[in-house]
Amino acid sequence: MTEKLKQQLEFLSEVDKMKSVTRQTLLSDKSREETDAEHSWHFALMAITLFEYAGFETVDINRVVRMALVHDLVEIYAGDTFAYDIQGLADKEAREKAAADKLFALLPREQAGEFRSLWEEFDRMETPDAIYASAIDRLQPFLNNYLTDGHTWVKHGVTIEQVYNRMAPVKTALPQLWEYIEYVIRDSCEKGYIHEERK
Amino acid sequence: MTEKLKQQLEFLSEVDKMKSVTRQTLLSDKSREETDAEHSWHFALMAITLFEYAGFETVDINRVVRMALVHDLVEIYAGDTFAYDIQGLADKEAREKAAADKLFALLPREQAGEFRSLWEEFDRMETPDAIYASAIDRLQPFLNNYLTDGHTWVKHGVTIEQVYNRMAPVKTALPQLWEYIEYVIRDSCEKGYIHEERK
Repeated sequence: MTEKLKQQLEFLSEVDKMKSVTRQTLLSDKSREETDAEHSWHFALMAITLFEYAGFETVDINRVVRMALVHDLVEIYAGDTFAYDIQGLADKEAREKAAADKLFALLPREQAGEFRSLWEEFDRMETPDAIYASAIDRLQPFLNNYLTDGHTWVKHGVTIEQVYNRMAPVKTALPQLWEYIEYVIRDSCEKGYIHEERK
Repeated sequence: MTEKLKQQLEFLSEVDKMKSVTRQTLLSDKSREETDAEHSWHFALMAITLFEYAGFETVDINRVVRMALVHDLVEIYAGDTFAYDIQGLADKEAREKAAADKLFALLPREQAGEFRSLWEEFDRMETPDAIYASAIDRLQPFLNNYLTDGHTWVKHGVTIEQVYNRMAPVKTALPQLWEYIEYVIRDSCEKGYIHEERK
C-alpha cells in the first residue's frame, strides 16, 4: 500500500466521528438529535432534489454536493456551534480553523487543498455555489424544526428577526421557496414556536 | 406553492426516516450501530476521496455520488437486509421493489424516474458507475468492521469465503486496494474475527 492511500484510508476512518457530533435539530419523529453525518446526507439529497429552483444560472450542483459532504467535517474537533449561539459564534472561526489544520493534514496535500477550499468557499458564502449550498444547509434544520413543534427555536427563545436573518439566503438562492418560508415563520409565530417581538 | 414543490418537500421530509434505519455495522468507536443516513454520507465521501483508484476509465463520479445518496432510500420501508443474511436476501428484491413504488411515488414523475433509475442501476451492478459504487458501498462497512474487532463477522459467524465473495467487486473497481483487502481478511482470520474454513 502506498503512503498516499494509507493517508486517505486514515482520513476516511477519522471522519467516522461525524456520526458522533450531535446537532440541536431533532429527527422529524422527535426521537433524538440528528448527527452531523445525517445532516450532511440530508443536505446533499435536498440540494439535488431542489436544484431546479436555484436562483442563479451558474450553480454547479456537483460542487454543491461536494460542499455538503465536507462542510461540517471541521466539527469533528470544533464541535457543532448552534446557529443562534452568540457566544459560541464569537470564537467559531478560530476553533474551526484550528480543526481544519488538524483534520485536512491527514490527507495527501493536493486532496487536502481541494476539500479545504470547498469548505472555505462554503463558509465565505460569496459564490453562487456557496450561497445556494448555504441556503440548503439552513433550509434542512428549518423544516425539521417546523416538524418538531419549533424544538430549537423554543429551547433557545429565538426571535422572528433572528430567523429572518438566518433564512435570508433562501430569498436569492431559491426564490420560489421564499413564500413558503414566510408562511412557516408566520405560522410558527402564531403557534408560539418563534418569539414575535424583535429584540 | 406549486403542487410539484409540495411533493418534493413532502419527499424530503419523508426521507428523514433514513436516520432511524439502523445497520449492523458499528461506529468505529463501537458506541452504537450506524444509521442508513450516516452510511450513505460516508459512502459518498469515500467515493470522492478514493476516485483516483477507480479501475474503469469511464466512471462518472458525480453519478456515483448521486447513487450513494439514494441507494438505500428503499430501506425506509423495506428495512436494512444484512449482507450475509440468506433468509432476508431471499425476498429482499420483492420487499425493496414495493418500497420503491411507495417512496418514489411521492416525487414528481420525472424526478421519481431519475432517482429510481439510479437505484436500479446501482442494484444491478453492471455499469462501471454501479460497480465502482457497489465496491465502495461494501468497503465502508468492511473497514468499520475491521476497526471494531470484526463485530458483524463475529456476531453472524461469517466465513472467509463469504467475505471474499462480498468484497470481490473491489478487485476490478479499485484494483490498487485489493492487496490491502486481502491483508485485512488474512489478519481478521488470524484474530478470529472471520471463520477460516470454507463452509
